[in-house]
Amino acid sequence: MNPVAPLLASLQTELGADAVLSAEADLDGFTEDWRGRFKAPALCVALPSTAAQVSAVVRLCAAHGVPVLPQGGNTSLCGGAVPASEGVRPVIVNLSRMRRIRSIDAANGSMEVEAGCVLKTVQDAAAAEQRLFPVSLGAEGSCQIGGNLSTNAGGTGVLRYGNARDNVLGLEVVLADGTIWNGLRALRKDNTGLDLKHLFIGTEGTLGIITAATLKLHPLPTHHALAWFAPVDPAAALRILGMFQAACGSRLNAFEMINRRQLELVIEHVPERRNPLGELHDWHVLVELADTRGGEEMAALLQHTLEQAADAGLIVDAVFASNDTQRAALWEIRHSVSEANKKAGVGLTTDCAVPVSAVPAFIEQSTRAVHAIIPGLDILIVAHLGDGNAHFIPFFTFDAWREFPDPVAMATAMRHCVNEVAHELHGTFSAEHGVGQTGLSEMAHYKSAIELTLMRAVKQALDPHQLFNPGRLLP
Amino acid sequence: MNPVAPLLASLQTELGADAVLSAEADLDGFTEDWRGRFKAPALCVALPSTAAQVSAVVRLCAAHGVPVLPQGGNTSLCGGAVPASEGVRPVIVNLSRMRRIRSIDAANGSMEVEAGCVLKTVQDAAAAEQRLFPVSLGAEGSCQIGGNLSTNAGGTGVLRYGNARDNVLGLEVVLADGTIWNGLRALRKDNTGLDLKHLFIGTEGTLGIITAATLKLHPLPTHHALAWFAPVDPAAALRILGMFQAACGSRLNAFEMINRRQLELVIEHVPERRNPLGELHDWHVLVELADTRGGEEMAALLQHTLEQAADAGLIVDAVFASNDTQRAALWEIRHSVSEANKKAGVGLTTDCAVPVSAVPAFIEQSTRAVHAIIPGLDILIVAHLGDGNAHFIPFFTFDAWREFPDPVAMATAMRHCVNEVAHELHGTFSAEHGVGQTGLSEMAHYKSAIELTLMRAVKQALDPHQLFNPGRLLP
Repeated sequence: MNPVAPLLASLQTELGADAVLSAEADLDGFTEDWRGRFKAPALCVALPSTAAQVSAVVRLCAAHGVPVLPQGGNTSLCGGAVPASEGVRPVIVNLSRMRRIRSIDAANGSMEVEAGCVLKTVQDAAAAEQRLFPVSLGAEGSCQIGGNLSTNAGGTGVLRYGNARDNVLGLEVVLADGTIWNGLRALRKDNTGLDLKHLFIGTEGTLGIITAATLKLHPLPTHHALAWFAPVDPAAALRILGMFQAACGSRLNAFEMINRRQLELVIEHVPERRNPLGELHDWHVLVELADTRGGEEMAALLQHTLEQAADAGLIVDAVFASNDTQRAALWEIRHSVSEANKKAGVGLTTDCAVPVSAVPAFIEQSTRAVHAIIPGLDILIVAHLGDGNAHFIPFFTFDAWREFPDPVAMATAMRHCVNEVAHELHGTFSAEHGVGQTGLSEMAHYKSAIELTLMRAVKQALDPHQLFNPGRLLP
Repeated sequence: MNPVAPLLASLQTELGADAVLSAEADLDGFTEDWRGRFKAPALCVALPSTAAQVSAVVRLCAAHGVPVLPQGGNTSLCGGAVPASEGVRPVIVNLSRMRRIRSIDAANGSMEVEAGCVLKTVQDAAAAEQRLFPVSLGAEGSCQIGGNLSTNAGGTGVLRYGNARDNVLGLEVVLADGTIWNGLRALRKDNTGLDLKHLFIGTEGTLGIITAATLKLHPLPTHHALAWFAPVDPAAALRILGMFQAACGSRLNAFEMINRRQLELVIEHVPERRNPLGELHDWHVLVELADTRGGEEMAALLQHTLEQAADAGLIVDAVFASNDTQRAALWEIRHSVSEANKKAGVGLTTDCAVPVSAVPAFIEQSTRAVHAIIPGLDILIVAHLGDGNAHFIPFFTFDAWREFPDPVAMATAMRHCVNEVAHELHGTFSAEHGVGQTGLSEMAHYKSAIELTLMRAVKQALDPHQLFNPGRLLP
């Protein structure tokens, strides 16, 4: 008899037959990542609709000694949301059916949502109440808030509003023994001991399954001013960032930089994307101000600050968005990089952060390191400059990639040489994507023994039988 | 032979004789809190100058089985920084000699400081580089950053910039086995597993001793606009807060409310404090906008928003600060409440937070509950309204207080009935002051069994021999 049959039967009893998928054909969308780079079998996919059902799944898996892999929108860029090829096949607990917005308290600036809510849905629900939920990233149309929180997602709003971690007030979490912890507080301040939510934010489902969250909302900026400009180089962009911070303070809403080759790929591979400037330059920055007031005045401030930068010889060219349509079009260029790169070839995405002041050195030294392996290789750069987070992407055509006898080894070597540069500059190999599968060897390499020991002690304390995502995060 | 003599001798060898105080007369400033409400003996006070010396002290105490009590500026409002009367006498590790500002990176918006730096010194060093360290509170002239972080201090900057937790990038911590964990990263993003710093922030020295921190700095607002006004009542103040958030967005820098009796005490007991308005009103709010630009324009915005509130019948009277001197004078009223209350009598400070939308109900119901015990008792209210954090303070003259046969029981009962109201409104008994000694019974009462179990599991994992602050935080 199939030893998993009793578990499947029990899961079906608890969740209903339609909420447990085990046929090979039904599993593809859950066992393979969206870029098609990771695929490994799961025992089944459970689709609970309530925290109580998540708890039941966890208890059953614990009883059967089968590991649990929590999954949201499956948009991980590092294989974090799908099974690994080694180890016991897990039960994937996909949270998509937990997608209720439970409540919004506009006066408190908070909303309670279930883990499976798509990020865009959360943003829209907040906006309908004249509030902002500021976490924003390319995958926002399909990623889910539970995944955003368990990976502590970054994105383009971090400069002003912080990471996902900074925009959550409380959590509901199913623990390794099936207990449901209700930590859904809607408080701006609560100093009663260890802030337990931070155990589950950014730990990639290894300590518990986030089933709901109380999110922090902000006043909704209603006026925006946006420019797209070509700085002389990254060091110039950094100086301009400083000018904007000094002149515009909290209005500074985004400061995103891409390089020439990245812009070319977007223009070539994504319909309706065009170069905003007359010609292609080496570097491009999208800068946005946002406020609750001051349309013309803020546009003038944007223009004035860029003129200052131009007078200082830091800018080659610039264009201003003069209405919301133009503004959206410029943002679409920025948001199209993943789609373009997926279509154009194979990009070895890295996700380093260094101190903001070290970004120019990081780009320069990483370029040198990669070109020492493959001279002249295309490099794409997508930088959240204000966060010190530069996605440095060695890029291959499909044809070139197919020629490598051992592409995995090549990818690992390439990423490692970039991560090495970040490490030398007191940076990290994972700024916002998380560790997933690609970062596991780097965890072993870069994390100090003390940090690994502390993390293992907490893992042992909360999940002593290694039920949640065994083998993940801690090498 | 005195069994502690060998430990004292070893400590003196490691730290130097002048860095170990054990004579009764030398200990007073360390074993008694600043309001004179808690006093209990310590074995000695160690004054290390480096993290290595802190490590040595921890190892020696562990070897001798003597508990360690970390201490900063000893400004706790809940007895958190001094020994308890029960239990083994601890070695107080006072961090005052670790007071170097190690470095500032203005372009990265970060600074590395030692735990014993006084908060005001940190603020000033940041300001000298045109940056803001936004944690600000009444005790800022004497509290230390290590204490601010291990208690996750709040204060008047939380509305805009978050709690102490939100303004730290990295920590250096001495662990229970004496290991020094160097987590002094200066990164805005770092998603490599459990964010370890949150284990030590807000846990009041029970999991490790913070010896240094990398702090997050912000653009320095250079323009301010401030008003002092009398709202009709707390519900009106809340509506006005909403108006300010919608109109002013990120500019809103402070929104602090005090009641009539609190203002009276400040005027009566602190020299040079005057009522800013023509007469005394029931409620008073200090509202401040701050920005990197727009002096007159921002003053107009402030005035316009208050006029809107007046038109809606929400305001009784208002005055605007027309220069920095007037602005400072109005802030001084707010910052003088602790001094006034200490001089005037005995205030039973509570520290509840509820959802912002529930503050008016909290004030009303707490007043009713306290007056059910002692009809007509003076009540002081000092509210960080935008954070949902209202210090509701039953207040006694010294004479009245002396008449209570069991003042401790009375204080506990009073606080508990206020905390009970907060709990009913989904709030907390400790918003920003921490648990210390006064909150310990409330931890036992209000924390769910699950949360206490999780906290104990982490404590056991990190400090298995209960070296740090035994008996604290976890009842």
